Amino acid sequence: MSPREARALFRAGLRVPTSGYCAGHTQANLIALPRELAFDFLLFAQRNPKSCPVLDVAEEGETRASILDGDLRTDLPAYRIYRHGELAAEVGDAREHWRDDLVAFLVGCSFTFEGALLDSGVPVRHIESGSNVPMYRTSRQCRPAGRLSGPLVVSMRPVPAERVPEAVRVTSRYPAVHGAPVHVGDPAALGITDIGRPDFGEPVDIRDGETPVFWACGVTPQAAVMASAPEFAIGHAPGHMAVTDARDTAHQIP
Amino acid sequence: MSPREARALFRAGLRVPTSGYCAGHTQANLIALPRELAFDFLLFAQRNPKSCPVLDVAEEGETRASILDGDLRTDLPAYRIYRHGELAAEVGDAREHWRDDLVAFLVGCSFTFEGALLDSGVPVRHIESGSNVPMYRTSRQCRPAGRLSGPLVVSMRPVPAERVPEAVRVTSRYPAVHGAPVHVGDPAALGITDIGRPDFGEPVDIRDGETPVFWACGVTPQAAVMASAPEFAIGHAPGHMAVTDARDTAHQIP
Repeated sequence: MSPREARALFRAGLRVPTSGYCAGHTQANLIALPRELAFDFLLFAQRNPKSCPVLDVAEEGETRASILDGDLRTDLPAYRIYRHGELAAEVGDAREHWRDDLVAFLVGCSFTFEGALLDSGVPVRHIESGSNVPMYRTSRQCRPAGRLSGPLVVSMRPVPAERVPEAVRVTSRYPAVHGAPVHVGDPAALGITDIGRPDFGEPVDIRDGETPVFWACGVTPQAAVMASAPEFAIGHAPGHMAVTDARDTAHQIP
Repeated sequence: MSPREARALFRAGLRVPTSGYCAGHTQANLIALPRELAFDFLLFAQRNPKSCPVLDVAEEGETRASILDGDLRTDLPAYRIYRHGELAAEVGDAREHWRDDLVAFLVGCSFTFEGALLDSGVPVRHIESGSNVPMYRTSRQCRPAGRLSGPLVVSMRPVPAERVPEAVRVTSRYPAVHGAPVHVGDPAALGITDIGRPDFGEPVDIRDGETPVFWACGVTPQAAVMASAPEFAIGHAPGHMAVTDARDTAHQIP
């Protein structure tokens, strides 16, 4: 399926996580904030590049981005609307909530490197099980910027112990979509008390001989929205990403 | 000489280009703009990452940065003051010009990888000749952002033809300080009509068997200031950089 075809399905109402969709293409997190917070957010991203690698920024009020030939308000499977840091709604179409003063940011997503993991013989459990990736709010704080602060959010993939080095090596080549893991092993060291109960997405089995491996996650901006309570924000529903037209190789380093 | 010692000399009045100073440490370009232009500039940098890799951003009104234990108004060898896009003054101490509404950005500088070039057997002519690096305004336009637009500025180093691949390979490992060259060979293709007359810095000899190699340059923000004429800006004097405490290896990729 091409990114264009996937976006047409999402626009028509399909609400599914996008992991495994459109192999070979870059996926992105969405965060749209009022213009008066745009500098704070771009600075937050600059200071937290592992979790917030900015791929594209739309002009104020614009609903199109250069890496995606579509409408940012309709072409993702689902959206979250925040008012004063509270989740006010989850919707499949954000048009009635969008405002002219919003600046939309697209942030790299680790779904982008999952094809490369599979190609290298590293299994991806949530693709095998057809579920959403598990994501966790950690006890690690991001570097604040202006009025924005909040915890690092991570995604987790269980990796057979002998494949962990390969998982690190492969994902290191994709810094623009979170790159190398931030943590390998003990969830408690990240302040995660129950690995079976993710804060976003769905749990996955961790089998004997597997180690949980944690990557920085583009839900981090939404955790900052929840922690910092700006008046208004729109994000994607976690795991329900913008599927862009950019090739994954465009974000690969040697 | 340590970065701290170098900064003390500059603070005391020494005005020299910093190429070759404090090998092993990261050098940075300075651009300070009024807060109301800060988002436009950070977006300009995001859209032009080869020329404007942001290393650090000081809070509004702050004159300290996290990668440099010193005062941004005094610890560079020289500064340029711009009013409405015109160069109004070049000074060794920017304190009397600094304003409380300025946001200071530090942008990676290619001087940072010159030690690695030398270590790899690639000569650096302006270090040999004790002169400032030659820099040129090109005919290549940056991607605009908000009220900021302008041409790409490049630095040039003549490289023996057989060492060009090594020069590309070595500098590719330092994307945060401009990374790989943007152009190898014909200056005319970049709209440079007289290689002997750089727009900034000083000319260097190009000897038989050498090819001019061009890297994106952190004077690009100042070219955008000249082209876009914001009410006020402060930059470093080209070639007269902020010598930071960050190791060059901190910005190296495998």
